[in-house]
Amino acid sequence: MQFHQDGFRPGDPRVALPAPDVVDGQGPLPDEVDVLVVGAGPAGLTLAAQLSAFADVTTRVVEQKPDPMTRGQADGVAVRTMEVFDALGFAGPVLEEAYWVNETTFWRPDPEDPTRIVRHRRIEDTPEGLSRFPHVILNQARVHDHLLDVMRRSPRRLEVDQATRVVDVRVPDDPDARVEVVLEHLDGDPDAAEGSDGGERTTVRARYVVGCDGARSSVREAIGRRLRGDSANHAWGVMDVLVDTDFPDVRRKAAVQSADAGSLLVIPREGGHLVRLYVELDELAEGERVANRDVTVEHLVAAARRILSPHTLEVHEVAWWSVYEIGQRLTDRFDDVPEALVDQRDPRVFIAGDACHTHSPKAGQGMNVSIRDAFNLGWKLAAVLQGRSGPQLLRTYSEERQAVAAELIAFDRDFAAAFAAPAAAAAARERTSRDGTGEHGPGRDGAGEDFQAMFVRKGRYTAGVETHYAPSLVTAGDPHQQLAAGFVVGTRLHSAPVVRLADARPMHLGDVLVADGRWRLLAFGDAADPGDPTSALHGLCHFLADDPASPLRRHTPAGADPDAVLDLRAVLQQPHDALEPTALHPVLRPRVGTHGLVDHEKVFCPSPTNDVFDLRRVSRSGAMVLVRPDHHVAHILPLTAHAELSAFLSQILLPT
Amino acid sequence: MQFHQDGFRPGDPRVALPAPDVVDGQGPLPDEVDVLVVGAGPAGLTLAAQLSAFADVTTRVVEQKPDPMTRGQADGVAVRTMEVFDALGFAGPVLEEAYWVNETTFWRPDPEDPTRIVRHRRIEDTPEGLSRFPHVILNQARVHDHLLDVMRRSPRRLEVDQATRVVDVRVPDDPDARVEVVLEHLDGDPDAAEGSDGGERTTVRARYVVGCDGARSSVREAIGRRLRGDSANHAWGVMDVLVDTDFPDVRRKAAVQSADAGSLLVIPREGGHLVRLYVELDELAEGERVANRDVTVEHLVAAARRILSPHTLEVHEVAWWSVYEIGQRLTDRFDDVPEALVDQRDPRVFIAGDACHTHSPKAGQGMNVSIRDAFNLGWKLAAVLQGRSGPQLLRTYSEERQAVAAELIAFDRDFAAAFAAPAAAAAARERTSRDGTGEHGPGRDGAGEDFQAMFVRKGRYTAGVETHYAPSLVTAGDPHQQLAAGFVVGTRLHSAPVVRLADARPMHLGDVLVADGRWRLLAFGDAADPGDPTSALHGLCHFLADDPASPLRRHTPAGADPDAVLDLRAVLQQPHDALEPTALHPVLRPRVGTHGLVDHEKVFCPSPTNDVFDLRRVSRSGAMVLVRPDHHVAHILPLTAHAELSAFLSQILLPT
Repeated sequence: MQFHQDGFRPGDPRVALPAPDVVDGQGPLPDEVDVLVVGAGPAGLTLAAQLSAFADVTTRVVEQKPDPMTRGQADGVAVRTMEVFDALGFAGPVLEEAYWVNETTFWRPDPEDPTRIVRHRRIEDTPEGLSRFPHVILNQARVHDHLLDVMRRSPRRLEVDQATRVVDVRVPDDPDARVEVVLEHLDGDPDAAEGSDGGERTTVRARYVVGCDGARSSVREAIGRRLRGDSANHAWGVMDVLVDTDFPDVRRKAAVQSADAGSLLVIPREGGHLVRLYVELDELAEGERVANRDVTVEHLVAAARRILSPHTLEVHEVAWWSVYEIGQRLTDRFDDVPEALVDQRDPRVFIAGDACHTHSPKAGQGMNVSIRDAFNLGWKLAAVLQGRSGPQLLRTYSEERQAVAAELIAFDRDFAAAFAAPAAAAAARERTSRDGTGEHGPGRDGAGEDFQAMFVRKGRYTAGVETHYAPSLVTAGDPHQQLAAGFVVGTRLHSAPVVRLADARPMHLGDVLVADGRWRLLAFGDAADPGDPTSALHGLCHFLADDPASPLRRHTPAGADPDAVLDLRAVLQQPHDALEPTALHPVLRPRVGTHGLVDHEKVFCPSPTNDVFDLRRVSRSGAMVLVRPDHHVAHILPLTAHAELSAFLSQILLPT
Repeated sequence: MQFHQDGFRPGDPRVALPAPDVVDGQGPLPDEVDVLVVGAGPAGLTLAAQLSAFADVTTRVVEQKPDPMTRGQADGVAVRTMEVFDALGFAGPVLEEAYWVNETTFWRPDPEDPTRIVRHRRIEDTPEGLSRFPHVILNQARVHDHLLDVMRRSPRRLEVDQATRVVDVRVPDDPDARVEVVLEHLDGDPDAAEGSDGGERTTVRARYVVGCDGARSSVREAIGRRLRGDSANHAWGVMDVLVDTDFPDVRRKAAVQSADAGSLLVIPREGGHLVRLYVELDELAEGERVANRDVTVEHLVAAARRILSPHTLEVHEVAWWSVYEIGQRLTDRFDDVPEALVDQRDPRVFIAGDACHTHSPKAGQGMNVSIRDAFNLGWKLAAVLQGRSGPQLLRTYSEERQAVAAELIAFDRDFAAAFAAPAAAAAARERTSRDGTGEHGPGRDGAGEDFQAMFVRKGRYTAGVETHYAPSLVTAGDPHQQLAAGFVVGTRLHSAPVVRLADARPMHLGDVLVADGRWRLLAFGDAADPGDPTSALHGLCHFLADDPASPLRRHTPAGADPDAVLDLRAVLQQPHDALEPTALHPVLRPRVGTHGLVDHEKVFCPSPTNDVFDLRRVSRSGAMVLVRPDHHVAHILPLTAHAELSAFLSQILLPT
């Protein structure tokens, strides 16, 4: 955490100085804003938290509900989402509060007596080394709280305007005109939330509007997009309960498939006592709707008891419960640009999260993918609004995230089907599989794949680290991938341990990936002494510092810190005690802030016990790894490929 | 972090439910309190933070200064103090904010050209494995802020009454009567702080008064105690500065001894830019006072420049500076009981921190020892006030902490002398030492020991982990020490990695040592299956659950959770996947809270890569390790020594 660079400032360094125009909080809703976020769920708040860090970007968040959420809904936080939380500054408290998913167990009917379940297998939930964070479980409401804290501490002192409903969204034909959003203020009356038109109305004119307003998104409707997909035919119940049970895995994530009573998922929760149970209900008849079935929480408890038999289950308190149907649905584009005009027009209205994709909660992906939708969009909006990039950057949002959502929907269909499949069939498949050619056997690619095998095989996917953006304006092809095989172009930078040169601090490369909108160039050094003018790293430093074609010179605004747009970091091959920080090229010791103080935190050395060059298979000739503001690897280049670096960044960043 | 045990409660689990009598904050200063803490420095706030956790103990904190501290003073946080912060719930944010001391370097005159300094040695600051926390540096004001947060979130919603000065402390002869403290309210006028008697006066009657009011403590004066010791004859300057320098170790802790220009200590600070410099000034003539010498910050900067030569030093901003003399002074007792009545009377007034001991800040001990004074006293006060222990427990505070302070004073005298000793003499001694019998050589015990050697030798001491309480009411002798050689009776429990059985979570034993006033019995299992009724662990469980002599039965109040006074934890030899949590003795799965929910977090297994039995040399026959509420090991016993356990605890805990 860096602070005091503009002079000593007492108090909590997490609380930013307010922007000059922010006096007593964010103030009343203005007539014009840069970004209007509709909906204060995980996607909306993640977007708002990111944008609130930019003192010169005005954002507001409107939410139809009168009060912040306090319970229920999503709870899974995948390791990749923890990395996003870390970039936003609150991974620490989440790690403290949350349940850590360390193991997952699988239960099946006892072959001796199929009316009883027995533990069949126990696996490590997240493979070692996948991320520096664990997979955790935490109430969505608490995730909201942490995001709201980030917003409140930001230069914009951003808060949610609750009880504010979108009535209309008007996108003018003039591409330079603002989008007009008509809002209705519900005055905290929850009954007014639907259909009423009694509240006061105001119009906000926004440069960009983002609909994070859930599966029944009014923003999506206003731009004429539809959720398309399967109608649901499996019903599930979910409940957060305080229980007494002799089921031994009530504090482990457990997937239970009974012989005849259905399936159940045990998700232990934060605080040591609460547990979430997902309970399979009967298959729905064609067209039958859950809402018509009069399911009560007592039904859910009774079903859970049958599935867990012979184990006891006494429910002391139900904190929250719900019943839902599985339905996989997807929107074809995540912005307002008609298909025919995709190459000509830049988007002004976006949708994110459940407004774009709905699916079962079983694989714990909903909140995660929504948060990552927003994490993809936030830096792009800020870059365009701050004049660092042209508006065509915004076209990549729908391109990238719609593909991710399509993959998710396909995955979820298979995953939910495998989980709901009768255990006996699964066991039969497994017997076949054991005669096959390895762990996964013949079922590997089929819809009928065994749930356990699929769970293991898809571990990296559900952890969120397999998102792989295709080549685009912001992601290069991978002709130089072999220079750093462990940093895969298009995927999120896989962090690795390093030692900071200036202070010998053991840390993670990922720790520097703060969500501040900056591109990062990780220059992995060649074997020569980095102070030697003939070294390739020194050559790169010289180019970046002095060449007119340097992206630092081309894209950094006058008066800004030299690392304001592109943050150069070096990772050297030498051990940290073999180098003097003061002998490095000055571009690796940039002067920042009003005092022009040296930033000492740009250079890293290998951890003595786990060399990042070996761990991530980085060439000993060095390599440049260019990282997008959302952590995805944009490009890998030889240290000497100065012109290629400049050319790539010139497509994305505007000249100053 | 455990919560929801009394039912689901939305919101931040760090914010406790307010006590029934706490309605809108702590309210105005009442006429009567349980504990009146005088002074809101590290000792006073640590004490208050601890006490605020007890809903039925009323505490107030008065502080003469009108506003909370914002800068300056102490900054070193030893690893043992980080463990205390963790017990109070804020190690996480401190780790995020603070500078981590990873390496210390030593600089000396270049033998070729003694006008220049050169780096002579580089050492790991804290030996590996000493604690699960690093040694960090953080502004004392931020430490205060974190303690104030703990107080504000507590059931008592405790805040500091600023601008409130102690005028008089009256200790009545009647041992059951309350201590009367006359307070003057200074109405925020800083000029009124000394000598004025214009403010409004009130009297608070307190069961206990604790003077944490610094070297010029009025509480100490009121109970007739004196700081005794050396008058100072070395003057030092200290400054927190934002600088430009080509000294390469400005982000490493560095001890610099020049040939003729004196000595300097570089303490890098939080945020990446700030640095503290301790600068030796001239030796003082006999009786000469710093206050008379008109030292300015410019003098300090000039002296630092001379010492660091040939390196540059440009100061951009001085955040804080001060000049002080080294003086080692100590009070003979830390409470109000006259020496002659020590065996007859229980104390009612205590002093802690600088009110008891003053010394140089060079070894970074001041804030640390003060915090640990308070951490020793807090649980004792709570135990007596809550009726869990008799008041004679309070006699152990002065016994234990005065001995610690005497040791500190002696250490500081040697440490400061060694640091201030001319480098040439040190180098000469080192040459002698190299001809001696090992690293430390002949200088080992003498006052003339080389600073570098002393720094290394005393690393465990300055880290705070060598505090060793002598046998007393609350600390047994060590006849069974060999059963767990790595948990030394009288010292703080040296944490070790374990895996929690119920959820396979990798964690540290130390993570359970929350500052909640509870004694903890760590039962390290024997080799037998813990579910086997013939195992020694099972025998202990049976005794604790069912025997009339069980301390759980004797000392736990009716209606309280079974672990409310003595928190039993088991550490088993078996790997976590070889045991079923539900097969354990019920005393290891106690029922807590209003719902009687099982506490699943009592049982641990060895880490697969670092077995606690090997790491801490625990007998494979098992052992009981009894841990005080302040983490110090009180007793080690065989698993079968049921009667000895009961007898020992019966001296300390009252029957119910």
